[in-house]
Amino acid sequence: MSELDLIAWIKEHAPTHSAVTIGIGDDAALLNVPEGALVTTDMLMDGVDFTLSQTDPVLVGRKALAVNLSDIAAMAGIPKAAFVSLALPRTGGMALAKQIYEGIFTLAREYNVAIAGGDTNSWDGPLVINITAVGTPAQKRVVVRAKAEARDWIMVTGELGGSLKGHHLTFTPRVREAQVLVARYDIHAMIDLSDGLAKDLRHILEASGVGATLQETALPISAAARAMMEDLKNGKAPWEHALSDGEDFELCFTVAPEVGERILEDHLLAPLRVSKIGRITPTSEFVIERLDGTRQPVVATGYHHTLD
Amino acid sequence: MSELDLIAWIKEHAPTHSAVTIGIGDDAALLNVPEGALVTTDMLMDGVDFTLSQTDPVLVGRKALAVNLSDIAAMAGIPKAAFVSLALPRTGGMALAKQIYEGIFTLAREYNVAIAGGDTNSWDGPLVINITAVGTPAQKRVVVRAKAEARDWIMVTGELGGSLKGHHLTFTPRVREAQVLVARYDIHAMIDLSDGLAKDLRHILEASGVGATLQETALPISAAARAMMEDLKNGKAPWEHALSDGEDFELCFTVAPEVGERILEDHLLAPLRVSKIGRITPTSEFVIERLDGTRQPVVATGYHHTLD
Repeated sequence: MSELDLIAWIKEHAPTHSAVTIGIGDDAALLNVPEGALVTTDMLMDGVDFTLSQTDPVLVGRKALAVNLSDIAAMAGIPKAAFVSLALPRTGGMALAKQIYEGIFTLAREYNVAIAGGDTNSWDGPLVINITAVGTPAQKRVVVRAKAEARDWIMVTGELGGSLKGHHLTFTPRVREAQVLVARYDIHAMIDLSDGLAKDLRHILEASGVGATLQETALPISAAARAMMEDLKNGKAPWEHALSDGEDFELCFTVAPEVGERILEDHLLAPLRVSKIGRITPTSEFVIERLDGTRQPVVATGYHHTLD
Repeated sequence: MSELDLIAWIKEHAPTHSAVTIGIGDDAALLNVPEGALVTTDMLMDGVDFTLSQTDPVLVGRKALAVNLSDIAAMAGIPKAAFVSLALPRTGGMALAKQIYEGIFTLAREYNVAIAGGDTNSWDGPLVINITAVGTPAQKRVVVRAKAEARDWIMVTGELGGSLKGHHLTFTPRVREAQVLVARYDIHAMIDLSDGLAKDLRHILEASGVGATLQETALPISAAARAMMEDLKNGKAPWEHALSDGEDFELCFTVAPEVGERILEDHLLAPLRVSKIGRITPTSEFVIERLDGTRQPVVATGYHHTLD
């Protein structure tokens, strides 16, 4: 069994899309994207983004695509095609690849995304998956990080924290939710929560030249984050998990207060929870108001890769 | 020093392009590609595609981009932007990343390609680089593998074989050459030679439902391939290296005979050599005519990843 047999199998099973004029099987794919191409790429590594020995490879493949769809969602885009690169362990690589692709194909079909190309390799190292997703803007404009305005409400979808308990493998990329929001409301700035609210919201603040005040009591803390304190006794309060845990893959966005009120009244994303968690402020200060009324600076404690 | 510091450094130094409306620093990049988006992706791994301990990281970065530009060239496309994912070894990762990016940036500037996004990670494993390149068709149409016709001449640019001697790190992606060819001549089918002529030409033959007869005496054998026999005494003749060695990254294309004659007369790619190496045949037979007039089947001995 060789790379070519696997590629033939992939080609036979891969979902297609009408926007993909040329798909798997040539030197490059050709996509018809007159509205513009939104492009994002993410690399997942065994031992960092998942632990292969403890994880269903189907979920590993699912996650590799889902994190990319989440990025396209955060720009208010519609994903159209994805490109999958694999570095497979030599032993058992074929069976592993098929399971990974099963996870990718299933999610791709759910979101009407073609698998339009890729690169399949084997080596003596651990599993690495890189996926690049290409989409198009859902509306005439995309939603960037840099347009948050002072007095905006800061809102998030879903619940935060404790993703490591399993959510990071099974989360729903908020593609449809972002499209509903952008179609109906003037969303100023948006990001998906991959590295933790503290770190990701800071990207919006820095890009927009503003600050923020969050309310501890307003944070939608997940059951997993609440359970973590009891499980781990690591001294981190649930609200700290909600603030700093990575991989929630929910949307964080800012809107004018009157728009925020309409969003809460309209319940368009129900049963998905949407919460107002704070306000954009004109200075660069980024603080959280605690339960007891004190204010403390938000430190960016989300996950990051250290280098030397 | 963290991932964020590196990303800030990358953003400051990365080449841009007018087609890139939103580049590094948001959840996804936005490209303006009304003519269509050509997309290709390649993953390079330490120990497989290069040996980091014996290679200048600048050349590793250069190669990672160059192999993608070669794929865009093979479709007769103009590359516009590239997206770089890195899995960096934790120790020395920052210095390594900057050298890799130096190689990427230099080649990107030469070809007017933006670095428009990516994903930077560190781990305990060996270096992995994935690059996705996005381009647009140079002409109204792209050149695919599936349009070779019986009686076509089979032609290649440059010289073949022995790439491991160094060419695989320093080759010129044939972007401009492909554009000249497609602008002036009716190119039926084209591919870039990444896995070796025998394997890559077979892709054209299978996609087009045709066969081929090559001439041993017509193969443009590189000096490196000639030297390899002497060096390695591995019993492979130079013509076999030219046929089966991977990573030449030259163009192989087919044209009607009268067009092939014009290409040889016009010398538009000079000083780059262009050779007629054989003919497309109506049956699926793929053979080479040896010096002594005998014909033997071409076996696909180029590099491939084995899996079990």
